[in-house]
Amino acid sequence: MKFIEKYRKISKKHNSLVCVGLDSDISKIPSFIRENFENPIWEFNKRIIDATHKYVAAYKPNLAFYISDGNRGLSALEKTISYIPSDIPIILDVKVGDIGNTMTQYAKAYFEELNVDAITINPLMGFDVIEPLFKYQDKYIFFLVLTSNKSSKDFLNNENKFYKRICEKINEWDCGNIGVVVGATNYKEIKEIRNILPDSIFLIPGIGVQGGDLDIVMQNAVGKNEPNILINSSRGIIFACQDRDSKDFAKYAGLAANKLQNRINSNI
Amino acid sequence: MKFIEKYRKISKKHNSLVCVGLDSDISKIPSFIRENFENPIWEFNKRIIDATHKYVAAYKPNLAFYISDGNRGLSALEKTISYIPSDIPIILDVKVGDIGNTMTQYAKAYFEELNVDAITINPLMGFDVIEPLFKYQDKYIFFLVLTSNKSSKDFLNNENKFYKRICEKINEWDCGNIGVVVGATNYKEIKEIRNILPDSIFLIPGIGVQGGDLDIVMQNAVGKNEPNILINSSRGIIFACQDRDSKDFAKYAGLAANKLQNRINSNI
Repeated sequence: MKFIEKYRKISKKHNSLVCVGLDSDISKIPSFIRENFENPIWEFNKRIIDATHKYVAAYKPNLAFYISDGNRGLSALEKTISYIPSDIPIILDVKVGDIGNTMTQYAKAYFEELNVDAITINPLMGFDVIEPLFKYQDKYIFFLVLTSNKSSKDFLNNENKFYKRICEKINEWDCGNIGVVVGATNYKEIKEIRNILPDSIFLIPGIGVQGGDLDIVMQNAVGKNEPNILINSSRGIIFACQDRDSKDFAKYAGLAANKLQNRINSNI
Repeated sequence: MKFIEKYRKISKKHNSLVCVGLDSDISKIPSFIRENFENPIWEFNKRIIDATHKYVAAYKPNLAFYISDGNRGLSALEKTISYIPSDIPIILDVKVGDIGNTMTQYAKAYFEELNVDAITINPLMGFDVIEPLFKYQDKYIFFLVLTSNKSSKDFLNNENKFYKRICEKINEWDCGNIGVVVGATNYKEIKEIRNILPDSIFLIPGIGVQGGDLDIVMQNAVGKNEPNILINSSRGIIFACQDRDSKDFAKYAGLAANKLQNRINSNI
């Protein structure tokens, strides 16, 4: 099934626009899991998925947190991808961008071997980055367009509005399977980007830890005919429990996911 | 040892400014290796390193070609890194760029676990991308600044000369361990970039398959006091043998590396 259909179906079924970022930092995982299991990240994720899956429209594991745990981490990533219910789309956060023959290899790794539904892409090298991805018609690509971090002013949000140029190029290239990553704190810009890309899915991190205001984001980001947004929360959900070693950590993750789901829905 | 010292030492010892790109595409590896060995990429690389190491100043494996072969590919990458003589610096080509806590994980994976000497970085998200890397004083970072691919005109080499802005920022941030990736076909721009960054190491792909002219590149890229360049060739060396299934493929790789070494040296 195409990513976009999967996303629409599950967001209706679960009445949710929440994306849970599986940034499963091994140093923050409860010690009883780190000490008693062969593959702590996988054991942690399994419990998080059990507790949250009813409230979400997508999961987004970030490659960095898996590759830093070596082969065991990559095995955790594979197991996590297989374990996520097949009707929930998976976005692998890799922020990769390279030329033709290299992108062909990344596409093979992520779209074929790991078989995720979408990846995040860094557009800096231009059209050549996505050309090898077009043959994957069922998959979806989220382009890095504007981030919430302080130094986004260095390039993406500079005085020439570089993010706008990226969006205009996406508009030229899009065949219905390109979305954007837009940080929640860029209120004005989100509106502007929605005007350029009326039908793209916006993957929006930066609510929670990074301080974006959900109400304003929703007003400016939601599409005309379909919401076409995914509000991503990573640490705010998977590490929601204040007590790092609590046996109940997953329950708190479920509560946090459900709370975010309701906050989003009350704003639509 | 600091990357930069390692690079200077080996380039004097081997009288070489050649970087061999280990883009070891499994589909192009001779069939007698693919069919007879458990880990074909590793077997291929071992023979390539044996045949080329005397002529090179660095090796540059590209993550895409390893991760696309799953766990076996990552194991090939680890074995390759251990096998490369310890006085030859290793640049892992990952073109990654993310914010703080994510970059911390990538740095752990690449600088600590895999223990390479340098990585390539995508600067799009600004200063936050490199902040977590500064603590690795012995390591080196190559920023993607200007590439040789056609669509580099979309963003990097647009009418505002975006690559120039990146170079000026690098100049602000640099503590002596930031270099740049500059495609060989950008003759004019290489000169301009050398003026902005007189002491950075230039990693230059695009000689060979992509058609850059070595003589002009050398005139424009070489630094005042030290050459401070690495001319990268990947397919042009590791797949130099016309007959894809030749038992002598490694010999041809050695000849190609030696030939590139001599061509560079005759231009200094």
